[in-house]
Amino acid sequence: MTSVATNDLNTVKRAFNFSAGPGVVPEEVIRRTQEDLWSLFGSGVGVLEHSHRGKEFDRVLEEAIADCRRVGNIPDNYQVMFLQGGATSQCYQVPMAFLAEGETADYFHTGKWASDSLAEAKRFGHVHIAGSSEETSFDRIPDDADVTYSANPKYVHFTSNNTIMGTEWHRMPKSPPGDAWFVCDASSDIFSRPIDVTKYGFIYAGGQKNLGPAGTVLVIVRDDILEKQVRDLPWMLDYQLQAKKQSRYNTPPTFGIYLMGQVFKWIEEQGGLAEIEKINQAKAKVVYDTLDSLDFYKPHAREIDRSMMNITFNTPSDELNKKFIAEADEQGLVNLKGHRSIGGMRASMYNAFPHAGAEALASFMKDFAQQNG
Amino acid sequence: MTSVATNDLNTVKRAFNFSAGPGVVPEEVIRRTQEDLWSLFGSGVGVLEHSHRGKEFDRVLEEAIADCRRVGNIPDNYQVMFLQGGATSQCYQVPMAFLAEGETADYFHTGKWASDSLAEAKRFGHVHIAGSSEETSFDRIPDDADVTYSANPKYVHFTSNNTIMGTEWHRMPKSPPGDAWFVCDASSDIFSRPIDVTKYGFIYAGGQKNLGPAGTVLVIVRDDILEKQVRDLPWMLDYQLQAKKQSRYNTPPTFGIYLMGQVFKWIEEQGGLAEIEKINQAKAKVVYDTLDSLDFYKPHAREIDRSMMNITFNTPSDELNKKFIAEADEQGLVNLKGHRSIGGMRASMYNAFPHAGAEALASFMKDFAQQNG
Repeated sequence: MTSVATNDLNTVKRAFNFSAGPGVVPEEVIRRTQEDLWSLFGSGVGVLEHSHRGKEFDRVLEEAIADCRRVGNIPDNYQVMFLQGGATSQCYQVPMAFLAEGETADYFHTGKWASDSLAEAKRFGHVHIAGSSEETSFDRIPDDADVTYSANPKYVHFTSNNTIMGTEWHRMPKSPPGDAWFVCDASSDIFSRPIDVTKYGFIYAGGQKNLGPAGTVLVIVRDDILEKQVRDLPWMLDYQLQAKKQSRYNTPPTFGIYLMGQVFKWIEEQGGLAEIEKINQAKAKVVYDTLDSLDFYKPHAREIDRSMMNITFNTPSDELNKKFIAEADEQGLVNLKGHRSIGGMRASMYNAFPHAGAEALASFMKDFAQQNG
Repeated sequence: MTSVATNDLNTVKRAFNFSAGPGVVPEEVIRRTQEDLWSLFGSGVGVLEHSHRGKEFDRVLEEAIADCRRVGNIPDNYQVMFLQGGATSQCYQVPMAFLAEGETADYFHTGKWASDSLAEAKRFGHVHIAGSSEETSFDRIPDDADVTYSANPKYVHFTSNNTIMGTEWHRMPKSPPGDAWFVCDASSDIFSRPIDVTKYGFIYAGGQKNLGPAGTVLVIVRDDILEKQVRDLPWMLDYQLQAKKQSRYNTPPTFGIYLMGQVFKWIEEQGGLAEIEKINQAKAKVVYDTLDSLDFYKPHAREIDRSMMNITFNTPSDELNKKFIAEADEQGLVNLKGHRSIGGMRASMYNAFPHAGAEALASFMKDFAQQNG
């Protein structure tokens, strides 16, 4: 990020924002965006106002794709697309495109988003549950020993990080039979650590956690899979067409693509995914160590499946949870309330979340435990 | 728009941007957005970073809906929704939701978007062309005398302004038979003039022309029509569910909704749609009068069907068209190139386009005609 002006707009003190999504955007990216809203590339036309077919947006899109490829080490035989409707739209688009009537897809049932994905898939074909953690309140990722694939799945779907539950796959699921490929909803941990794209057929990720914009969804798909569409699809839902048109079959969410592009540049400036992972590990360690060092809190996730992005925990009572959230909020530690489906607290610390925020939370947790324990 | 700070970010001289979309955003809105990117409502969290379930975004959404209702004089028995995927997604979503196999919908064929809409509808049911201007290169809106509806259309679809062709409906199409309702793609002239919503069943409009954000689409639909969905739809495509969830079935495009909301506020500050129409008429008159006063230019649209938003015209040759576009660009009159499907020039002057830009174009047109005529 070059030539970011200092300006006197940004005088309000920023909170430590633990929101699960939309979440924190890097401050350098916000400052750059403030500039580009007025005039992009010296054009006298702001980033919101450029034609999606003009040379300035050509540059935005080309850079976003190239930067994404470099950051994610994405091979040439994968397409990078920026689609609309969020990850939730991919829940139905994937089976609508790839799962014919009578065919079976295997799904891992590890939380709410996994559950929504497999429910949508049932509209289009058979769904087999390859593994589930429902019985233990989604506190874990299924062990390989407990996974059973169907005989001939078309694809295997998993959610790499379960935002609500605070669990994360720290390995790939075991290899599926036949030529099934992995479909991964990586919305809440995309680009939080290095990723070996070659192990996946289809990756999708809503932007609003690690990539910036709500609404825009990053899709990374292997070329040969685009050939496997089983239905005649409306144009907007046709991945092959969207790939051919470079995500511009219609007017794309130009600002969302711009913002993701800026976030890719920011990730590179941090040293890429290997460095980002170290930074994220350090932040998560500060909070998990605090959780573990005090008898007061109860973490939700099984230790080996703990998410680096979303840390879920409870105090001894609902009343104390409420007090925790309210008092933290007063100290500028905001959005710590857990999802309504599991309650308690959730500290989401995505890529752009500062280390100082993790330290501040740990310190608050210690004080709160001491005063209320 | 209160308390907009002066800042030294915005030093680049702004061009007169004639882009057909994404198009001009009001400068007051850009300045306000620059502030809110850093911190919204004094929260210390920027507009991009707020949870879509938090109280700050609740306020953004509630205000956007209320402001939209006030600006558009939208009755209580209509829902206001902010959906994703642009107007192009509505091309298939409307027939997928409302047109059963065997049923017929009537479409007006007045240009490219109308053509795309009716092509998508053919996937789901029968399409009857109620009127077309294809034979005259889409230079007009069909006269009532040339309109023939089918016996029992489910709905009648028209495109109120044809961005590419520069034609616009200056009246409603004649009344359809039975209980058919009007579906209108109003993407390129929504809120450019007063609108009697009660004459429509379903209105959709991509945001990137008069409302701000590309990707986000405004949908205004009468309550009883939501009951008429004919298919079991994926959740994201289910209008009834989206209405029930106030556009928040999933994480909505929060920034797009924020931006539309700011544009609604700006429209009110201009005096509402009656005033906006006068301002737009005055701008269009400056350019049309210039076109008509010189023998040099050839307007594309039939006079009575001329669009107030998009003015399409040619010089005597392709070579001069190119020269016109290049020389205008040098003078800060940018994005005047016509759509590739009809060539020539197109001057798009949406709500936020300044009157001074219309004057500058007229002046340039006179000079260019003199030098090249």
